[in-house]
Amino acid sequence: MSGLASEDELVALLRKLLADDSPGVRLGPGDDAALVEMGDHLAVLTTDMMVEGVDFERRTISPTDLGYKALSASVSDVAAMGGSPRFGLVSLGLPTEVEASWVVELYGGLREAAGEYAMSIVGGDTSRADGVVVSVAIVGEVAMGQAILRSGASPGDRIVVTGSLGAAAGGLRIAEAPPHSVASVAGSEWGRELLAAQYRPVARVGEGQALARAGATSMIDVSDGLALDLSRLCRESSVGARLSLDRLPAALGLELLPAVLPDVEPMALVLSGGEDYELLVTLPPEAVEPVTERLREAFGTPLTDIGEIVAGSELVAVEADGTERPLEATGWDHFAS
Amino acid sequence: MSGLASEDELVALLRKLLADDSPGVRLGPGDDAALVEMGDHLAVLTTDMMVEGVDFERRTISPTDLGYKALSASVSDVAAMGGSPRFGLVSLGLPTEVEASWVVELYGGLREAAGEYAMSIVGGDTSRADGVVVSVAIVGEVAMGQAILRSGASPGDRIVVTGSLGAAAGGLRIAEAPPHSVASVAGSEWGRELLAAQYRPVARVGEGQALARAGATSMIDVSDGLALDLSRLCRESSVGARLSLDRLPAALGLELLPAVLPDVEPMALVLSGGEDYELLVTLPPEAVEPVTERLREAFGTPLTDIGEIVAGSELVAVEADGTERPLEATGWDHFAS
Repeated sequence: MSGLASEDELVALLRKLLADDSPGVRLGPGDDAALVEMGDHLAVLTTDMMVEGVDFERRTISPTDLGYKALSASVSDVAAMGGSPRFGLVSLGLPTEVEASWVVELYGGLREAAGEYAMSIVGGDTSRADGVVVSVAIVGEVAMGQAILRSGASPGDRIVVTGSLGAAAGGLRIAEAPPHSVASVAGSEWGRELLAAQYRPVARVGEGQALARAGATSMIDVSDGLALDLSRLCRESSVGARLSLDRLPAALGLELLPAVLPDVEPMALVLSGGEDYELLVTLPPEAVEPVTERLREAFGTPLTDIGEIVAGSELVAVEADGTERPLEATGWDHFAS
Repeated sequence: MSGLASEDELVALLRKLLADDSPGVRLGPGDDAALVEMGDHLAVLTTDMMVEGVDFERRTISPTDLGYKALSASVSDVAAMGGSPRFGLVSLGLPTEVEASWVVELYGGLREAAGEYAMSIVGGDTSRADGVVVSVAIVGEVAMGQAILRSGASPGDRIVVTGSLGAAAGGLRIAEAPPHSVASVAGSEWGRELLAAQYRPVARVGEGQALARAGATSMIDVSDGLALDLSRLCRESSVGARLSLDRLPAALGLELLPAVLPDVEPMALVLSGGEDYELLVTLPPEAVEPVTERLREAFGTPLTDIGEIVAGSELVAVEADGTERPLEATGWDHFAS
């Protein structure tokens, strides 16, 4: 888009335009999701649009996977508030050449994911379009006072992240490479796991709620890459961060990719790959160990302490040997070409 | 889309795929909106997608009008349930050449409409796309027991419609004609009103609630044309209808259009024009007069008795001289080319 350098600039502009202190609006645009009052409940509202040629290619993703992924991407924003998804609406733009069977499979994936998250898809809209567009809106719930925003981090908090990082970006590199060059990788167990992270991501709903109950001070989902999403969290909280690079939980197998795809830099995928849908969370130091244990027991999900929140606004990457360098907030920008 | 003849066939297929008796879902896909339980409230959920080149042309609609219209189109579905819109989410697909000022104006129109409906836009998502896509999701409320579905019409009910019909389609014909051929029309008061109906439609929120309280047995908004939307209502209610053609409230000035645009048939626009966003409602005969009076007093909105619901499944159009013919359920199909 002309006249705006990045998606974050556009979002900042829209936030200003939509500033709104209407009754019932607890939290407007700018966080993972909005919070609104519905009777005695706090509803979590979020929407996510996936566009063919930008967010996916129809020749490389099956309709079932596309449906599954589109719902997971939206649910992840609810998870990052500590909420539970309840109801989904799906708007579809469809080119005329798309077969009915393709749409049936897309909905199969949407339904499968909805079952996974114990939510219901209750409606939608369809329109003709030049490329496939899948827009998902989610209505979720969160207990009053339990919603975790991006803005609550304080100096001294630990920074933790669920699961592993870089897997979805690694999977995309495998999927986009000429098949013969990655045949050995795509057939290996770790190769299949990287591909699954790209095509069948699972939002961390239960983990988000457990982290909220454990005293999370801020939370965001890592959809656009660790570095970019951490910079957003720090900006909203008016704090800085020190990230320990040697502690980052790189996805299994990522370090083996350069052997077949020489231009892949595993650390770049870990820091800026995007689409991980993990939760990046800040916690008081004493809360880290118990909730790490709880996540392992209840969900089998690792939680890794990767750094600390500091005063100021600088983001610093710390190497294993103690060397420090500024952390570049690069990642997936929905407007970059 | 290949393999499916119409939008209605696709919707029927998706309804079957999404059939769901989950707790909390009072009404799933297939009506104007879904109804779900949120605590002690009944929420009304609906979404609407507008695609450049299909639903609008960027060279003929201003971004302000596009924003206003996109919100009105979604709110109209809430109005057709007898509900109140509360919160909106907006997903935008934007081509790279779109200027930031265009987006600001689009949001100006969205905000203006939100003010009109006393609701708030609380969030959204943006993505790059080849053409502009505006997807709006609305969360509204309705009192328990007050929601009016498409399925409640009974033989003997009167069929009424708010406002006038064919105006939006007439406005589109003026807008798409070579400017010199319609200069006199576009400058007239009725010409401007037809254009306003196309570019600044207003959803009938207050009227929908008044009709619900007055005992409406079924309700649908006329977004795809009277004949097609009446056929949908009748199918859901398992009834037929007799429509009195001479009673249809044609928009002012529509009968003057053929003088400058010879291929315009006013009655075709009234029956199948689409985008009127009026409410088509069935009522017990004794309820018609009081609510007609009420709508005129409270909103200045005419309500016209245009026919009756009958047993069976036939839709019959009755001419002024009593001649009868089958009513063809044609209208705006989002998949027709």
